[in-house]
Amino acid sequence: MNLIDTTITKAVIIFSGGIDSTTLLYHIRAQGYDVTALTFDYGQRHRKEIDCAAKIAARIGVEHKVLDLTILNKVAASTITRQELEIPEGRYNEDIMKLTVVPYRNLIMLSIAAAFAASQWIPELFYGAHSGDHPIYPDCRPEFIEALNRTLAVGEWNPVRLRAPFSHMSKGEIIKLGLKIEVPYELTWTCYKGKEKPCGKCGSCIERLEAFEYANAKDPLDYEK
Amino acid sequence: MNLIDTTITKAVIIFSGGIDSTTLLYHIRAQGYDVTALTFDYGQRHRKEIDCAAKIAARIGVEHKVLDLTILNKVAASTITRQELEIPEGRYNEDIMKLTVVPYRNLIMLSIAAAFAASQWIPELFYGAHSGDHPIYPDCRPEFIEALNRTLAVGEWNPVRLRAPFSHMSKGEIIKLGLKIEVPYELTWTCYKGKEKPCGKCGSCIERLEAFEYANAKDPLDYEK
Repeated sequence: MNLIDTTITKAVIIFSGGIDSTTLLYHIRAQGYDVTALTFDYGQRHRKEIDCAAKIAARIGVEHKVLDLTILNKVAASTITRQELEIPEGRYNEDIMKLTVVPYRNLIMLSIAAAFAASQWIPELFYGAHSGDHPIYPDCRPEFIEALNRTLAVGEWNPVRLRAPFSHMSKGEIIKLGLKIEVPYELTWTCYKGKEKPCGKCGSCIERLEAFEYANAKDPLDYEK
Repeated sequence: MNLIDTTITKAVIIFSGGIDSTTLLYHIRAQGYDVTALTFDYGQRHRKEIDCAAKIAARIGVEHKVLDLTILNKVAASTITRQELEIPEGRYNEDIMKLTVVPYRNLIMLSIAAAFAASQWIPELFYGAHSGDHPIYPDCRPEFIEALNRTLAVGEWNPVRLRAPFSHMSKGEIIKLGLKIEVPYELTWTCYKGKEKPCGKCGSCIERLEAFEYANAKDPLDYEK
């Protein structure tokens, strides 16, 4: 599958160390891009996510930068960033998501990543938005990507182009693609909790396990119990 | 002059303590808005700008928040944020501006301000972009404002609306308006240098002095020499 035009070879990717952005990183590396991976530290409950991102970047041999975005804690409450709130268990629903989402979080991360790319004359910025996020995160939808691309195009004399090649794929389809290019899913982290093993019960774990099931594959992670 | 629909009364404003945002603050307060003023600390060379913003907010009696945006220093070099670079003197030109602008800086500040507004259910976000900035700052142009507004509209279920009522006015016209509503320009700060008195020589000072001249008014600030 060739989702990407490879005439330009330098790119920045927003890289969380989860399934989607790790698969995208491997995908664009396979397409020949010279990649810088950016991970945002927005005061996650645990460092595990960031440590996983660092390990994966080292494994594939790309430059990895961690940028402090703890300002988000001062901007809006969120279960993802605030230690004092309980993490909901079970499948995602709208009420739960209201607790776990900082408004415009992707917009903020993409804006900063675009600034980083522009300042280094890197013309392309990738992120792993996928179709499963659309009902929950408005800023993962194709209309958001298109609008932000227009904003980036008119917002800088040497603009950065935003690419989200997985925006029409489900997480299961992303894993199918990733297994073909040997993405090391054993290094990726999805669980909202930062324990030794993933819990298998939070919305993120459930979504991940269902996606592996869709891909007819076994998740290499060892879950609690 | 009534540039603003006043059916909605809560608003956030990006507020630097300079001419444009101070005039806009006074303007929207005069229109009846209940305003929260946001100032970004992006590692300015001096605290003077932020201190001026705080004084003005206290004078007019609006809530004032300072948000840390020193992450910009790690993202891109800029004479505004980096102590080690020389501040250019004289009129702005393209080469000088390349040194003083962080790419997508307004986009980053507006995104964070929109997140703040959305998290507090405040539906409107104001910023003081004006027509004099268009040739230099692409992210002050009407096409940028329009594109970002579209992005904000599709990027959140309860979107924030971006308003830039001065985007077709020059700085001189802004000062004319401000003098009518008694904006305390003696409290505003424009100079890139953080000395006791403004230098009168940097691009910002020159632009300010010319704008007062256009408005047939005397700048109340006391300049060096």
